[in-house]
Amino acid sequence: MSSAQKREQFLAVWPSLAGELVEYLRGEGMPQDAVDWFKRSLDYNTPGGKLNRGISVVDTVEILKGSPLSDDEYKRAAILGWCIELLQAYFLVADDMMDQSITRRGQPCWYRVENVGNIAINDAFMLEAAIYYLLKKHFRQEKYYVDLLELFHEVTFQTELGQLIDLITAPEDHVDLSKFSLEKHHLIVVYKTAYYSFYLPVALALHMAGVTTPSAFQKSLDILIPMGEYFQVQDDYLDCYGTPEQIGKIGTDILDNKCSWLVNLALKKANPEQRKVLDENYGVKSSDSEARVKAVFQELELAREFEQYEADSYKRINALIDEIPAEGGQDGLKREVYQSFLAKVYKRQKCVTQGPAPE
Amino acid sequence: MSSAQKREQFLAVWPSLAGELVEYLRGEGMPQDAVDWFKRSLDYNTPGGKLNRGISVVDTVEILKGSPLSDDEYKRAAILGWCIELLQAYFLVADDMMDQSITRRGQPCWYRVENVGNIAINDAFMLEAAIYYLLKKHFRQEKYYVDLLELFHEVTFQTELGQLIDLITAPEDHVDLSKFSLEKHHLIVVYKTAYYSFYLPVALALHMAGVTTPSAFQKSLDILIPMGEYFQVQDDYLDCYGTPEQIGKIGTDILDNKCSWLVNLALKKANPEQRKVLDENYGVKSSDSEARVKAVFQELELAREFEQYEADSYKRINALIDEIPAEGGQDGLKREVYQSFLAKVYKRQKCVTQGPAPE
Repeated sequence: MSSAQKREQFLAVWPSLAGELVEYLRGEGMPQDAVDWFKRSLDYNTPGGKLNRGISVVDTVEILKGSPLSDDEYKRAAILGWCIELLQAYFLVADDMMDQSITRRGQPCWYRVENVGNIAINDAFMLEAAIYYLLKKHFRQEKYYVDLLELFHEVTFQTELGQLIDLITAPEDHVDLSKFSLEKHHLIVVYKTAYYSFYLPVALALHMAGVTTPSAFQKSLDILIPMGEYFQVQDDYLDCYGTPEQIGKIGTDILDNKCSWLVNLALKKANPEQRKVLDENYGVKSSDSEARVKAVFQELELAREFEQYEADSYKRINALIDEIPAEGGQDGLKREVYQSFLAKVYKRQKCVTQGPAPE
Repeated sequence: MSSAQKREQFLAVWPSLAGELVEYLRGEGMPQDAVDWFKRSLDYNTPGGKLNRGISVVDTVEILKGSPLSDDEYKRAAILGWCIELLQAYFLVADDMMDQSITRRGQPCWYRVENVGNIAINDAFMLEAAIYYLLKKHFRQEKYYVDLLELFHEVTFQTELGQLIDLITAPEDHVDLSKFSLEKHHLIVVYKTAYYSFYLPVALALHMAGVTTPSAFQKSLDILIPMGEYFQVQDDYLDCYGTPEQIGKIGTDILDNKCSWLVNLALKKANPEQRKVLDENYGVKSSDSEARVKAVFQELELAREFEQYEADSYKRINALIDEIPAEGGQDGLKREVYQSFLAKVYKRQKCVTQGPAPE
């Protein structure tokens, strides 16, 4: 099945879930305008992205099963996938407010839609609440129900921690590069992105597949967190060095004072003169300043450094994957789960094709 | 024990819980500035209110047990109480942003503290996440653990629904009294206030006391939701008719276009002329307009209507309480739980004494 078909199949589950949530509101006797508002927020904020996180739950459940999923199995895996997409929607609605972003997925950010404004904060809360409503409705009878709840709680907290470090380390309006470091960058990307985007889909699939061994979850973390970190480093690299066709937008990390891998590596390698250029120009909203920063990146050969990092990271992650026995681990793990993830993210800049803009 | 002593005893548990949450961040390797930030948000936003909700968990557990709590029992009941206070903190930090409020509990709203701003959205999220961290840490081994999780999920969603109806019915900057009605008012107060302030403390205590009969929870709802509604109607009444000494602030519901019980009753009773006065003056930020609205309230004898409502409501709630057998119900319920709640809220305007300003 092509990735476009997978996407269609996954999207086809959404209307029934949105419908269940709307029915809950109706059942509670909510006025029509509140029901309409919630429905609009759900549909505006939840589908519409690449849906990679949600779809990878389904993919992983299928790999772990080793044969095609029944309709019912597909539906249940997709519900867990949509719960990740709701979690993502919750974060993005709020992040856009905190970053004062303008557009998201090719449309105005939700808080910028007419009459929404700060009500978007409560809408974000309700997107999160929807997760637990759906989990209760569809998974309450499962032995692993409480594990699902705890997993969402824990990963949510971790993502919020990552967002906190990011917000206080790199406020858009106050540049202080002395707060930056590769260690901070590592924490930000692991907490803000890797847990919910890489570990969460696999952990959910493992629960659904009946895996209970703690080591299986630990090994998944050991592989997927570095993979998520690599993914974000690549994202940072592409923001500066990718073409608009490759990344679907024009990168603005330098203008926006982002705590990107590139600037952190530059800070580590810079001599006092180069450091001065970075201090004076990073996060300054002018294309001249941006060009000066890019020139320092060039002098420091950051593109070459990225290639080295990428090769090392790929090798290291593959070595971890190879520790899983080829015939499958006793703990229920399969190499293919991680190989398939790695194939999706590794060197995506060399084969970026169709699909909506990255998130 | 006096209510001031009860408050002190309850407050004494907070530092250890804040400490556990801070330790979690440290254990995850968070940078010192992020740990400090979270600690400050926890202490700024969580204690400092009246703590009625939290303390009533402890009171209820003690009544259900029928004898004084051991230190360990006290601590565990207080943890559940602090989880409600964290939930309240989560709502209030966000509500203040959505309402553009200036102060809360005699200090600037958190989002107005220097350097906080919109980061308060993520801080609100983290206050909520703290609930589930504490529940897992202290209640994971209990049979009723999953019930606690579901209860918090459900009540959180309900409160957010109440907030949504309130926000779209009564935006501060756009007056449209045709959206108001006593039915909307009922929904707003039940969902936005009664579930988390009245039902949640008792439901948590019932779980801790080992009560499992669904009818016990249903009867608690039947009594506590009307009680919460009465409490909010009284709050609305006092905003207009209470003295500043009684309510600890100067009421601004009329100026702020609040969907108050008084205006909804006035809309129901008003003749076309009075309606015109309300349409032209409600929510208008001028003391003249406020006085005109108050004059209509006077003509319609709303104070007398409140007294009648109060007497009816008291009678009705007492009748429900009296359905519980005097010797205690087979389902584990005790009249005293509800009588003690009712005594705290009924006619509080006639005996308001010490204590911080109402929230």
